[in-house]
Amino acid sequence: MSVPALFERVEINLDDRSYSILIGNDLLSDARAFDGIPGATSALIVTNTTVGPLYAQALREQLAARYARVHVLELPDGEQFKDWSMLNLIFDALLGHGSDRKCVLYALGGGVIGDMTGFAAACYMRGVPFVQVPTTLLAQVDSSVGGKTAINHPLGKNMIGAFYQPQRVLCDLSTIQSLPARELSAGLAEVIKYGPIHDMAFLDWIESNLAALLAREPAALAHAVRRSCEIKAMVVGQDERESGLRAILNFGHTFGHAIESGLGYGEWLHGEAVGCGMVMAARLSQRLGGIDAAFVERLMRLIAAAGLPVQAPPLGAQRYVDLMQVDKKSEAGEIRFIVIDSPGHASLRSAPDDMVRAVIEESCGA
Amino acid sequence: MSVPALFERVEINLDDRSYSILIGNDLLSDARAFDGIPGATSALIVTNTTVGPLYAQALREQLAARYARVHVLELPDGEQFKDWSMLNLIFDALLGHGSDRKCVLYALGGGVIGDMTGFAAACYMRGVPFVQVPTTLLAQVDSSVGGKTAINHPLGKNMIGAFYQPQRVLCDLSTIQSLPARELSAGLAEVIKYGPIHDMAFLDWIESNLAALLAREPAALAHAVRRSCEIKAMVVGQDERESGLRAILNFGHTFGHAIESGLGYGEWLHGEAVGCGMVMAARLSQRLGGIDAAFVERLMRLIAAAGLPVQAPPLGAQRYVDLMQVDKKSEAGEIRFIVIDSPGHASLRSAPDDMVRAVIEESCGA
Repeated sequence: MSVPALFERVEINLDDRSYSILIGNDLLSDARAFDGIPGATSALIVTNTTVGPLYAQALREQLAARYARVHVLELPDGEQFKDWSMLNLIFDALLGHGSDRKCVLYALGGGVIGDMTGFAAACYMRGVPFVQVPTTLLAQVDSSVGGKTAINHPLGKNMIGAFYQPQRVLCDLSTIQSLPARELSAGLAEVIKYGPIHDMAFLDWIESNLAALLAREPAALAHAVRRSCEIKAMVVGQDERESGLRAILNFGHTFGHAIESGLGYGEWLHGEAVGCGMVMAARLSQRLGGIDAAFVERLMRLIAAAGLPVQAPPLGAQRYVDLMQVDKKSEAGEIRFIVIDSPGHASLRSAPDDMVRAVIEESCGA
Repeated sequence: MSVPALFERVEINLDDRSYSILIGNDLLSDARAFDGIPGATSALIVTNTTVGPLYAQALREQLAARYARVHVLELPDGEQFKDWSMLNLIFDALLGHGSDRKCVLYALGGGVIGDMTGFAAACYMRGVPFVQVPTTLLAQVDSSVGGKTAINHPLGKNMIGAFYQPQRVLCDLSTIQSLPARELSAGLAEVIKYGPIHDMAFLDWIESNLAALLAREPAALAHAVRRSCEIKAMVVGQDERESGLRAILNFGHTFGHAIESGLGYGEWLHGEAVGCGMVMAARLSQRLGGIDAAFVERLMRLIAAAGLPVQAPPLGAQRYVDLMQVDKKSEAGEIRFIVIDSPGHASLRSAPDDMVRAVIEESCGA
């Protein structure tokens, strides 16, 4: 299985669960990008009503050469649909089509589709292969890579899920061109994230190339996606099931999940909540002594320039704290945050309750 | 972590997922049986309305010494409740109690409770530890061991699940004494199963000791549970995720699942359907040349003597075939069966459609 160098490759090394991320333009129309994916009698493309009309036909044509039967399932679009009832529609479709234990699922869409389809693949007949075909920047740089799959529960985001690796990730950069501006910004939040937690040179690069990224210049997008995937691959390769290091990828997410869940899923995009959450986590890091005010200011300016909200919704400090207590990183009732220990380095830590509340008050602003 | 020899031990060897099955009388009241199970701030006992009143208090007392908070969730009893809505009650309880990623789930009950609780543990926050405390013979000899977890889907049994190993299996033989006779017989079906697929000497032993087993003599129960667990441990240790060998444990289950699903879950007990399914699978094996009529007769007599049905419900051959087509072992629309190649040896094979239909007709009888 060798794929010519028309696209770039990032490898995820996880023993028998290793796989490749392919990054390139027009991947969906390149048969070679599909070489080596497991065969079967049938495949199911899971997508949503926004992405399906744009790309399902192209993917279906590629798959028609490889599977006797290719079905498409279109789900409604949005974080508020990332729940059991939608997941069950995937199972209904698989069983309705008589799909066997070798069938392959293709997740064609953003993070919601990828997380749900991956979780369906993890559970259907106790596990069938699946392929991530992320069509949003956020999914390409973060959620499609690393095998975290889940659905939401009314009491908490991503509470029900599995670690389950895809067979491949196909990042077709061309799909970014059709993305609404708001979704592009949301994706940039996860790109920016990699700077403060691991790679200050990348943060410099993002600042210098933000205009090119917002203009969707292919070369800039390609670099942002590749470098993000490289960092994620390195982290996931060392800590697949988040027993330690991997938690740093959640920078901004503890506050961010509280915003999403507190406002109701789908009100803010995940990336928007993470953008604002990073400002809050940076402020907490400053209070804990890891970074100075200038660094917080620099990060906030970049996040705002990327088109993301930097002022937190005024849910009230107590509500934030309550919502964060059900975070998966909490232990024995103690909320834990990813904080920047020094620029480019992060760790998982708890923080004094009054400090957390002060950060919330400050971030909700007047 | 060394446990004195008051109980017997069978080890499941699966690298970092290895664990012990402890088998003995009054295990629930022996603190040493719990040594080495992961600690946490909280534990949740999941049980049902039949088993809970009998044993939840004893388990709770053991756990009170090990967890700051111990909660009990009682679900309704029966295969018809092994579905998403009940699974979701477990998630609701966990989130309602603010359970974190280290909380430990205890499955106290039969196969339904074990399968559901194990699947909940596999999915809650992408995986928390769990312990099997099987209180039925069927769960002690089969379903609690080996990490198969699942819920049913209206279109097929155990269609949604995960391979997820427990931290320990605690087989308290005393709980068998409170089992209804029908449940005892259902458990014997899975005990008998191990003979024709792997151990003819064990089949001889079961025949010689059936009266003692039906009388629930502790020494006979102890041997039946231990030998069953040994065989299952050997098979699972070689093929955790059922890529080959492990399928032999499904002897009688292809027909059996069709009976359960065709009659409606809960009408026949799982073990009853498997008992009858083994007669059908034996007949198929005979037609395929693996065993002779005398062996089929011998197996049928034993199954009947154990108090299990040997005449299949008259669903019609077509309905059986339709139901078996969604079996997890099917591939490319071809139903596959565990057949006895020679006494003590089994394999996964397809069979001519008219032969399968003839077996169904014969087994539904006049």
